[in-house]
Amino acid sequence: MRPSGRKLDQLRHVEIETGFTKHAEGSCLIRMGDTHVLCTATVEEKAPPFLKNTGLGWVTAEYGMLPRATNSRSRREAAAGKQSGRTQEIQRLIGRSLRAGVDRSALGERQIVIDCDVLQADGGTRCASITGGWVALRLAVNRLLASGAISSDPIIDHVAAVSCGIYAGQPVLDLDYPEDSTAGVDGNFVLLGGGRLIEVQMSAEGTAFSRTEMTSLLDLADHGVAELVAAQKRALG
Amino acid sequence: MRPSGRKLDQLRHVEIETGFTKHAEGSCLIRMGDTHVLCTATVEEKAPPFLKNTGLGWVTAEYGMLPRATNSRSRREAAAGKQSGRTQEIQRLIGRSLRAGVDRSALGERQIVIDCDVLQADGGTRCASITGGWVALRLAVNRLLASGAISSDPIIDHVAAVSCGIYAGQPVLDLDYPEDSTAGVDGNFVLLGGGRLIEVQMSAEGTAFSRTEMTSLLDLADHGVAELVAAQKRALG
Amino acid sequence: MRPSGRKLDQLRHVEIETGFTKHAEGSCLIRMGDTHVLCTATVEEKAPPFLKNTGLGWVTAEYGMLPRATNSRSRREAAAGKQSGRTQEIQRLIGRSLRAGVDRSALGERQIVIDCDVLQADGGTRCASITGGWVALRLAVNRLLASGAISSDPIIDHVAAVSCGIYAGQPVLDLDYPEDSTAGVDGNFVLLGGGRLIEVQMSAEGTAFSRTEMTSLLDLADHGVAELVAAQKRALG
Amino acid sequence: MRPSGRKLDQLRHVEIETGFTKHAEGSCLIRMGDTHVLCTATVEEKAPPFLKNTGLGWVTAEYGMLPRATNSRSRREAAAGKQSGRTQEIQRLIGRSLRAGVDRSALGERQIVIDCDVLQADGGTRCASITGGWVALRLAVNRLLASGAISSDPIIDHVAAVSCGIYAGQPVLDLDYPEDSTAGVDGNFVLLGGGRLIEVQMSAEGTAFSRTEMTSLLDLADHGVAELVAAQKRALG
Amino acid sequence: MRPSGRKLDQLRHVEIETGFTKHAEGSCLIRMGDTHVLCTATVEEKAPPFLKNTGLGWVTAEYGMLPRATNSRSRREAAAGKQSGRTQEIQRLIGRSLRAGVDRSALGERQIVIDCDVLQADGGTRCASITGGWVALRLAVNRLLASGAISSDPIIDHVAAVSCGIYAGQPVLDLDYPEDSTAGVDGNFVLLGGGRLIEVQMSAEGTAFSRTEMTSLLDLADHGVAELVAAQKRALG
Amino acid sequence: MRPSGRKLDQLRHVEIETGFTKHAEGSCLIRMGDTHVLCTATVEEKAPPFLKNTGLGWVTAEYGMLPRATNSRSRREAAAGKQSGRTQEIQRLIGRSLRAGVDRSALGERQIVIDCDVLQADGGTRCASITGGWVALRLAVNRLLASGAISSDPIIDHVAAVSCGIYAGQPVLDLDYPEDSTAGVDGNFVLLGGGRLIEVQMSAEGTAFSRTEMTSLLDLADHGVAELVAAQKRALG
Repeated sequence: MRPSGRKLDQLRHVEIETGFTKHAEGSCLIRMGDTHVLCTATVEEKAPPFLKNTGLGWVTAEYGMLPRATNSRSRREAAAGKQSGRTQEIQRLIGRSLRAGVDRSALGERQIVIDCDVLQADGGTRCASITGGWVALRLAVNRLLASGAISSDPIIDHVAAVSCGIYAGQPVLDLDYPEDSTAGVDGNFVLLGGGRLIEVQMSAEGTAFSRTEMTSLLDLADHGVAELVAAQKRALG
Repeated sequence: MRPSGRKLDQLRHVEIETGFTKHAEGSCLIRMGDTHVLCTATVEEKAPPFLKNTGLGWVTAEYGMLPRATNSRSRREAAAGKQSGRTQEIQRLIGRSLRAGVDRSALGERQIVIDCDVLQADGGTRCASITGGWVALRLAVNRLLASGAISSDPIIDHVAAVSCGIYAGQPVLDLDYPEDSTAGVDGNFVLLGGGRLIEVQMSAEGTAFSRTEMTSLLDLADHGVAELVAAQKRALG
Repeated sequence: MRPSGRKLDQLRHVEIETGFTKHAEGSCLIRMGDTHVLCTATVEEKAPPFLKNTGLGWVTAEYGMLPRATNSRSRREAAAGKQSGRTQEIQRLIGRSLRAGVDRSALGERQIVIDCDVLQADGGTRCASITGGWVALRLAVNRLLASGAISSDPIIDHVAAVSCGIYAGQPVLDLDYPEDSTAGVDGNFVLLGGGRLIEVQMSAEGTAFSRTEMTSLLDLADHGVAELVAAQKRALG
Repeated sequence: MRPSGRKLDQLRHVEIETGFTKHAEGSCLIRMGDTHVLCTATVEEKAPPFLKNTGLGWVTAEYGMLPRATNSRSRREAAAGKQSGRTQEIQRLIGRSLRAGVDRSALGERQIVIDCDVLQADGGTRCASITGGWVALRLAVNRLLASGAISSDPIIDHVAAVSCGIYAGQPVLDLDYPEDSTAGVDGNFVLLGGGRLIEVQMSAEGTAFSRTEMTSLLDLADHGVAELVAAQKRALG
Repeated sequence: MRPSGRKLDQLRHVEIETGFTKHAEGSCLIRMGDTHVLCTATVEEKAPPFLKNTGLGWVTAEYGMLPRATNSRSRREAAAGKQSGRTQEIQRLIGRSLRAGVDRSALGERQIVIDCDVLQADGGTRCASITGGWVALRLAVNRLLASGAISSDPIIDHVAAVSCGIYAGQPVLDLDYPEDSTAGVDGNFVLLGGGRLIEVQMSAEGTAFSRTEMTSLLDLADHGVAELVAAQKRALG
Repeated sequence: MRPSGRKLDQLRHVEIETGFTKHAEGSCLIRMGDTHVLCTATVEEKAPPFLKNTGLGWVTAEYGMLPRATNSRSRREAAAGKQSGRTQEIQRLIGRSLRAGVDRSALGERQIVIDCDVLQADGGTRCASITGGWVALRLAVNRLLASGAISSDPIIDHVAAVSCGIYAGQPVLDLDYPEDSTAGVDGNFVLLGGGRLIEVQMSAEGTAFSRTEMTSLLDLADHGVAELVAAQKRALG
C-alpha cells in the first residue's frame, strides 16, 4: 500500500559514497532513495569563543537545500538574505545529534563543521543529513587521529537517524515525500549505534497520537537505524 | 532533592490572569513559578495567501523574550536584525501545537496570531507559551462565536504543554532554569486535554536515554498536563 | 471636553511598581492610565569602546513595543528584521534624556542599559519610558552604591517627561491616544526634578504654533513633571 | 569669540544654486558656509497606499551623507546595509517640516520625494536640508502648476530651518561644526515664512537650560529664518 | 611547465552528465577537471514584471558555491545574510551570456532560471557554469518544444565559455586554481558555437597587457570553446 | 548620426575640478558631458587584515548613485538595505583598475579608499569614476609624499577609462545614455597612461561581435584614453 511498493518496515535503498569532494577533511554523498545529500566535515583548529580555555571541542552543522532540489523551485536563501526557520531548526538538530555521539573533551579545543547540502530531495533530508554527516565526521576524526593531532578517539558511537510516521493508518519506516506530505503523524528518531535514543521529535500533522502508536514507531526506528549503521560501516570499509 | 524543594512530580505554582492587556481579542499573563509570559491573540479577517479559497483558517504564533527576561541581558532581536534559530524553532512549535487543537474548517478563512512574549524567564518558556497561548486563543474564539462571525466552535480540545527531564538521575516534572541547565535529558510534551499526544520533543543533553526513561517522562507529562488543563479551566471561569 | 473627562492640566493615574522582574538590577512597571511600560536597568561592567580610558560611563536605552500593545497588531520588529525609524528616534531620546541626569564621571567606566518595553499603549509611551526608566536606573545605581562598586552617587537629579499638546484648540497635559491622534500641536518635554529643561520636542501636526502657545505647554509640562517626580519618590519609598 | 569670527546673531554665508542637476523636477545645491547639500524633488503620480482615495497628497524626504562629507570617513550606509538612527531621525524631521507648509488636498493624490544628500558637512546639515529642500519642492510644484497638473498652489508658505545653541555660555545663531561639537545646548528651529513655529527640538548636551535661554534661542531663530527666507526668494528669482 | 602537466592549449578533462537531478526541467553535472558544477534549469510560466505584455521571455541565473567547495571553508552566504559581490557579478555574467544565445521572442513570456551550484572548485567555475548552464537550458527548451508549449526553437546557437591567461609568461588555456591564483593576466571568454564573441572580460592581475597578448588569448579561447561545444553535443547525444 | 551630434571618435566635453570637497585627502568633480561624479580619496593608516605584516598597501573603491541622478528616481540603496549587484560589480572594477596603477609595496601598509558618487548620470559613470578616481588618488598620494609619510611615489602611471560600443552599426567613442541604452555591443576599456591595457569588458547586448569589431573599439579606446590622460594632467596643473 506504500506508493513506492515498499514494505511497512523497509528502508529506501541506501548508498553512502565517501570522498565525494576532495577538499574537505571528510565527505560523502548519501543517497536514501531519491534523497541525495552531500555532507562535508571541516576541521577548524579553534573552538567557538564560549569554549575558550575549557579544553572542550565543538561539533556544529549547517544545512542548505539547492533551489531546485525540490519539485518546484524554492527561493535561494542566500538571495533571500536569510535562512528560513525550517533550515535553522534542521541544522540545530543535526549539530545536537552529532555532538551527542562525541566526547568533546577527547576532541580538544577545536571545531568540526558539518555542511549538509541537499542536491535532490524526496523526504527525510534531515535524517539523511545526520546519517551522512556522521560518516563525514568519522572520516575527519580519522584524519586527526592519523596525524596525531588527537590521541584518543572522541567518537563514542555511531549516530544515525530515520523518520517514521503513520501513513494511511499504518506505521511505516523511512517516509518518502509522497508519504511525508500526507502522513497523519511524523517523527524523526536519532539513535546511537548501541540503540539508545538521542533525539525524538514527533508531530501530529493531522490527528493526535497514542502511546501505543508511539511505541510502534520507535520499534520501526530501532530496526531502521540498525540497517543505517550497517550502511555506515560498509561505506567506511 | 530538587533545588526548589518540589516533589519529583510537582508543577510550579501556576497562575493564569486573563485580560492582561486591553487591545487584544484574547490575552493572558501566565506565570509558571518565575516564568512569566504575556500571551495575546489577534484575529485577522484574512487567511495567509496559501489558503485562499480553501475555506480553511490558520493559527500561527510569534515568540519573543525581553532582553532582560534572563539573568544576563541578551541582545534585543529587533536590534540584531533577526530572530535567532531558537526563537524560530519555538514559535513554529507553538503554532503547530495550537493548530493541532483547532478545526480549521470551522474557523473559516481567517487567521489568529498568538504572540507570546516572555517578561521573565526561569525555564520552560515554550511550554508556558503553549499553555497560555491556548487560553488567549480560546478567548479570541469566544469573541468570534459571540459576535456571530463563526457559528460552530473550531476548538476541539484544550492544548497544554509541560517539560520533563532526567535531573540528577531522576525523572522530574516541569524543570525550572537551574534544573534545565544541568538536566541530562530534556523533553517537551504537548497534549490535548483528552490525553493524546500532539508533540513530543526529547533531547539527550548529556547521556542517551532508554525507552523506559522515555516512558517515565511521558507519565509525568500526563499528570502535569492534566493539572495545567485544570488551571486553564479555572482561569476561564 | 477631553475624551477621558480629565481636566486640562490633569495627568492620567500614575502607578510605578518597582521590582516587576527579578533578574534586572533595577526594574519597574510604569502605568500612565492605559499606557503600561516595563522598564529594566542592566549594569554592564564595561563601557562602550569610544569611552575606553576616559573614566566616563554611559547610559543608553532600547525601546520596543509588543506587537499587540496597540489597537491593531503591528509587525514584530524582530521578524521584520529592523527597528523602525520611530523606534530608533524614541530610544535615542530616552538615552539622551537619562544621560542628562547623570554624572558620567562618578559612574565610572561602566554602562547601564535601560530597556523600555511597552506592554500596552495608549499614547505617551516615550514619556512613560523616560519617567519609568529613571526609576529603574535609580534602583540599579542604588545597588552599585550599596555594593561599594561606586562611592559617590552619579545621579544628579530626577528626570521625568510628559507630553502636552493643543487639543481641540486648548492646551492639555498628558495626551492619551484619542487626543494624540487628533492634536494640532504635540510636544514632549523632559525636565530635571529641579525644573530645568533637558529636551523639548514640539511638532505642528496640523497648524503652526505661536510662542504664546509654546509657553502654555511649557507651563503644563512644569506642573505635570512635578507630579511625576512625586510619583517616582513614592515608588522608591 | 566664535571660532569663525562671526557675530553671535550672524548666519554663515548662504548660497542656493537652483537647477544643479538636470533630471529632477526641482533641484538646488544649498551652501551654508562649508555645509553643502544637494536637494532634489521627484514628483510621483501615485500617493502612498495609506492615502488611497483620500484625495490627499504626500511629501516625504530621504537624507544621506556621502562617506567623506565629514572630516573622517564614515561607513557608507548602503554598504552597512541600513540607515543609522540619526539618518532616519533627520529624514523624518525634513519630511514632517515640509509637509507642514503644504496643503495636501491641493496637491492631490501624488507624492513628492525630497532627497537631501550632504556633499560636505560642517554642522547644521538637517537645517540646510530643510531650507534647500523647500526650494526644490517649490520648483517641482511650479512645474506641476505650469503643466496644469494641479490648478491651485498647494504651497502655503516658505519653510526654513536654522540651528541655535548656547556656545561658550552665549546664545549663538547657526552653529558650525566646531561650535556644534562643544555647545552645551543645541536646538533646531523650523519656521514658516510668516514666523510661526513648525518644529522645535532642543537638547541639553551638557547643562540643562532655562526658559530664558530658550527664549533667547527662539529670538535668534526668528532672525535667522527671516534671512534664509530672503535667500530662498533670491534663489527663485 | 603547467602544474598539471597539460599543454599550453589543452583543456582539462571535460565531462557533462545530463539528468543529474530528477526534478528540474533540465540538469547536468559538468566536470572540468576538479571543478564540478551542478546546473539546473527551471521553467517558470511567467516572465518578470518588466516584460509584461512584450511577448518576450527571459533567462536568468543564480550562482552559489557550497561552503566547502574550496580548500578552506568559506562562510555560507545564506548564513551571512547576503550574496557577495563576486557571486552577484558571476550570476549576472551567466545570465547575460545565456540570454545572448536565445531568441527571447520565440521563447515567449516565460522565464528560465539557471541555477549553478559549485560542488567542488578548482578554478574556472564561472566558465563551467556557463557551459553547463547552456546544456541545462537546452534540455529545458527541448521539453518545451516536445510539449508544444513553444513551436519554434528559441535557441540560436551553443554558448560556451573558457578562461585563458598569461601564466608564467605564457598564454595558457583553461586555468586551474594553482594557475589562476598566480596568473598575471586573466580573461574569461564567452562565445557562440559559430565562433563570434558574446563576452570578453580581461583583467591585469599583475602587469598590464598588450594587444598582441590579448590576441593570443583570443586564439586559445577559440580553440577551447570549439572543444567545449563538441562536449556539449556529446552530452546531449 | 550620433544623437549628440558628436563625431564617431569624439569624447564628450571633459572637466575635472579638483578640491571639490575640503575634508578628503584628495577630491575632484569629474564632468563627462552630463555625467557628473564626485570622487574622494581617504587615506587610512591601516591596511585590511589580510595584508597584515606583508608591507603591502591597498586601494579600494566604493560607488554610489544619488537616487535622482537618473531620469526616473531609483531606490536609495541605504534604504533598500543593500547594494545592488550592479553597484558591487562597478566598485570592484574601479578598485581593481586603480590598484593596477599602484606599486603597493611603495604605498606601504595603509589603505586608500576611493568614493565615487554619481551626482548626475548620462551614461559612462563607471569610466568617469575610474578617470576621476585616479585624480583623487593622485592628490592623496601627493599629500603622503609631501608629508614624508612615504618616500617614493607608489603611482606607476595614469589610469583612465572610456566606454566604446557599436551604435547604429558604427563603432563610437564614449557612449552617452541614449547611445548606451540601444547599443548592440558595449565595452569598457581601462588603460594605463602608456597605452597598455588593464581591463577589457565587452558585452554583446544584441548581436555577437567579431574580432574586427573588437579591434575597432580598442582603437577608439586608445584615442579616448589619451585625451582623458591629458585632461587629468591639466586638472592637476
